[in-house]
Amino acid sequence: MTSQAGKPGETGADALCDTLLANDVDVCFANPGTSEMHFVAALDRKQQMRCVLGLFEGVVTGAADGYARMAGKPAATLLHTGPGLANALANMHNARRAHTPMVNVVGDHASYHLPYDAPLTSDIESLARPMSGFVRRIGSAADVSPATAEAIAAASRAPGAVTTLILPADHAWGAAPQVAPAKAQLRAPALPDPDRVSAVAKALKNGKKTVIVMSGTALRAGALATAQGIADATGATLKAQQSNGRMERGAGRVAVDRVPYPVDQAIAALKGFEQIVLVGAKWPVIFFGYPGKPSSPVPEGCETFVLADPSDDLPAALDALASEVGAGTAKPVAAALPDPATGALNAQSLAVAIGRHLPEDAIVCDEAVTTGRDFFRFTAGSAAHDWLQVTGGAIGGGLPLATGAAIACPGRKVVNLQADGSAMYTNQALWTMAREKLDVCVVIFANRKYQILLGELKGVGAGEPGLNASRMLNLDDPAIDFVKLAESMGVEAARADTAEGFADLFARAMKTEGPFLIEALI
Amino acid sequence: MTSQAGKPGETGADALCDTLLANDVDVCFANPGTSEMHFVAALDRKQQMRCVLGLFEGVVTGAADGYARMAGKPAATLLHTGPGLANALANMHNARRAHTPMVNVVGDHASYHLPYDAPLTSDIESLARPMSGFVRRIGSAADVSPATAEAIAAASRAPGAVTTLILPADHAWGAAPQVAPAKAQLRAPALPDPDRVSAVAKALKNGKKTVIVMSGTALRAGALATAQGIADATGATLKAQQSNGRMERGAGRVAVDRVPYPVDQAIAALKGFEQIVLVGAKWPVIFFGYPGKPSSPVPEGCETFVLADPSDDLPAALDALASEVGAGTAKPVAAALPDPATGALNAQSLAVAIGRHLPEDAIVCDEAVTTGRDFFRFTAGSAAHDWLQVTGGAIGGGLPLATGAAIACPGRKVVNLQADGSAMYTNQALWTMAREKLDVCVVIFANRKYQILLGELKGVGAGEPGLNASRMLNLDDPAIDFVKLAESMGVEAARADTAEGFADLFARAMKTEGPFLIEALI
Repeated sequence: MTSQAGKPGETGADALCDTLLANDVDVCFANPGTSEMHFVAALDRKQQMRCVLGLFEGVVTGAADGYARMAGKPAATLLHTGPGLANALANMHNARRAHTPMVNVVGDHASYHLPYDAPLTSDIESLARPMSGFVRRIGSAADVSPATAEAIAAASRAPGAVTTLILPADHAWGAAPQVAPAKAQLRAPALPDPDRVSAVAKALKNGKKTVIVMSGTALRAGALATAQGIADATGATLKAQQSNGRMERGAGRVAVDRVPYPVDQAIAALKGFEQIVLVGAKWPVIFFGYPGKPSSPVPEGCETFVLADPSDDLPAALDALASEVGAGTAKPVAAALPDPATGALNAQSLAVAIGRHLPEDAIVCDEAVTTGRDFFRFTAGSAAHDWLQVTGGAIGGGLPLATGAAIACPGRKVVNLQADGSAMYTNQALWTMAREKLDVCVVIFANRKYQILLGELKGVGAGEPGLNASRMLNLDDPAIDFVKLAESMGVEAARADTAEGFADLFARAMKTEGPFLIEALI
Repeated sequence: MTSQAGKPGETGADALCDTLLANDVDVCFANPGTSEMHFVAALDRKQQMRCVLGLFEGVVTGAADGYARMAGKPAATLLHTGPGLANALANMHNARRAHTPMVNVVGDHASYHLPYDAPLTSDIESLARPMSGFVRRIGSAADVSPATAEAIAAASRAPGAVTTLILPADHAWGAAPQVAPAKAQLRAPALPDPDRVSAVAKALKNGKKTVIVMSGTALRAGALATAQGIADATGATLKAQQSNGRMERGAGRVAVDRVPYPVDQAIAALKGFEQIVLVGAKWPVIFFGYPGKPSSPVPEGCETFVLADPSDDLPAALDALASEVGAGTAKPVAAALPDPATGALNAQSLAVAIGRHLPEDAIVCDEAVTTGRDFFRFTAGSAAHDWLQVTGGAIGGGLPLATGAAIACPGRKVVNLQADGSAMYTNQALWTMAREKLDVCVVIFANRKYQILLGELKGVGAGEPGLNASRMLNLDDPAIDFVKLAESMGVEAARADTAEGFADLFARAMKTEGPFLIEALI
């Protein structure tokens, strides 16, 4: 069986582009293959769509994640069959944990070609489902537009979802009905539930020691001020979830600590609380299980209240609670900038320089891992900024996140705080930064090891690493030259190995537009 | 709930290592994470196991593929939870299409920790199944050894399979019974089916035009000579499957053409055949469906005979057929080496230099894509060598394949013929080559575009690429500096832009041990 192509401008692929654009999805991060060639040809006919090439699919979906977190709307992606999707999954996983809206379009073989089991054939649905809130295989060229609108709606519904459309090549090249592109049926986030609001208000007044754990849009400046007012009025403690898609912080904003990552610190941070109130956050859980340690840092017997689910209007829920408890809006306490550091370059002197020089409206994309554990403390007084974390624990989120955030927010400086080991998973993002001339400063923390794992190995009681452990956890033989790596992909770069040297380079980078990488030897 | 750790040396992770070693699996390609730390600690106690770190999981499974194709036995891999597995899937897909034996060990959360849905939690089974012939979640520390033996057996059974074991952290750290490691129940490949042999023998004598399409172990030197004898005796034409895991060729061996990749060439290659005989090969299928073109190059009405399935003993089947048709063993026709090329560096002058200087016993790992379409012609007379292809169409196979082949075959020169676009997906393999001091020469064909896709775009009838297509298919802005990229990861490198310059560099690299990269500007 074969199938004939529709006329250029009237194919399923054209309907796909038209539907995306009609629903305000106008950026497409792409790594195409043969089965997507009609989609590429259709994109070529729509100059309103900004197409951004990633040289590896993890860059594509990680950038779509960073873009949507900052733009507040989904980007599309273009991925090539099962293996292309597979490469994209780790950063889809991170995006899913951040509730990021995303519309992935995965090209597949022509529907009649699938039974032949050609070499690239695979079970795309099985691959997509674990990392997608919505998966739909397009059934015909006529189905392209409604399916795309459905995906956009599913992606955009609060709190946001990763969606995957599978587009068989024959439905991309087939003739589509010439009708207006389908519009996504959007839905506003749910209003606060008065019963929950009054139950939480009552709990906050019962004298028990209470922690309020927040995530999502509860971590924007306005909502944080409201939450601080509630805390001031009731004596509750505020915390952010351990990892969050986006948090507004810095000068003029309320500083909130996160529940720590390390198990013992997390347990200590929640110790003694008798009540926990969740505002768009998940019930706190330890990142990994450890022998003889609990799975959650929440103390035994601590009572849980949910003020609002991630899909609710979190700022409105906090407003309602504030009014119920008679809270005012808090004025944030001004945090001081740290004094300059001198001498050795280490996690603290790095943090000091970053804290001092972060410019107004910067976007920090944080995959600093061990080096960055204490960065919040040194940046609480920095100029107002957004802080984006790698939310799902999948390594290789940082560089792509920064790429996408910079595309979403021209005119804002993006700072990628990046562990060296993690940087290698998606180093190809550097090329996209150069290609798109993005205003990103990448800071590589080059400790030349998987420091987090060396710590965990110690925790296992295995003693000092021997030959095999050493060869799996140390990256110093050979050392990676990140300056050359950046230059190989067209990104200017320099190296620092003292506190003063790093501060100088970082301060200069903050004032100079365009991509730049600093390898910080620590 | 929590769980206590067993004593070092007596954990599930120790049982895993012991079982692998007891079954002759003594290389582990790894990219570990926290949930695998007890496995790492156990590997550290077994110096007989060679642990090879990949800085990205696609390197890990691609290297395991190259290793097993050359070693004839599986390697183990160590992958970190769902996202780590996801990064590994594309090269598992290639390995699956090559019938490569592989034992992937994917660490997961402690079993009692899973219901907490910690950030890294995902549906590992759903991710693993599309690219694995066997998936098994280990149920307890006592289950580790039998499950591992089962996986090794499933991997090793002819023709070989990709297998995935999911190892929950508590079963890795839990105390395992101190019993002898389980032995894998191996099974020899199936003997030739006499009915099939006589049916094929009869068909070969009926005067109809017949093509014999081979793959797997039918492409080793001895089997190829047998096949050529059959062809000489019966007038049949020999072809290799379009893409094959390993093929022995060069001087002293029978040269066989593959069914071509491009649709029109594939149709032309099989035109006029009335009968097709499959020897471990799949029925020929076009790589992609195209509007108005068939899904298979096999002519309508052509009758199909299966001499042997991939799981059969293919050399024995060819022997049986040879004796049935009264064939002798053919002497291969000696092919001449091409004359040296001068002037411009292009696909042909590259092929000439490679063909002339390929040393005895070289292992060629071919991800040359468009540049390499005609390389077979120029290397038929080269010194005897093995030729490994990227079998599943998943991009990024070449560099990792070369890495694994070099680990399997110390003392043999590995040559990676590598398209530039594809190289970027798994460029991290360069670091492993440097770390392990592997004898690999990587030749990058730097045309600075996705040439295959520009060809396909033309085929779509989209005319000249406009802005969006151009930005998705050209890699020249900025050009990637592969010399710097290699040097950044500790691999020496040089650039050539003339036929003579390339021939010099390549000839020297063939005589110098250790990793080296040549960027060939074409």
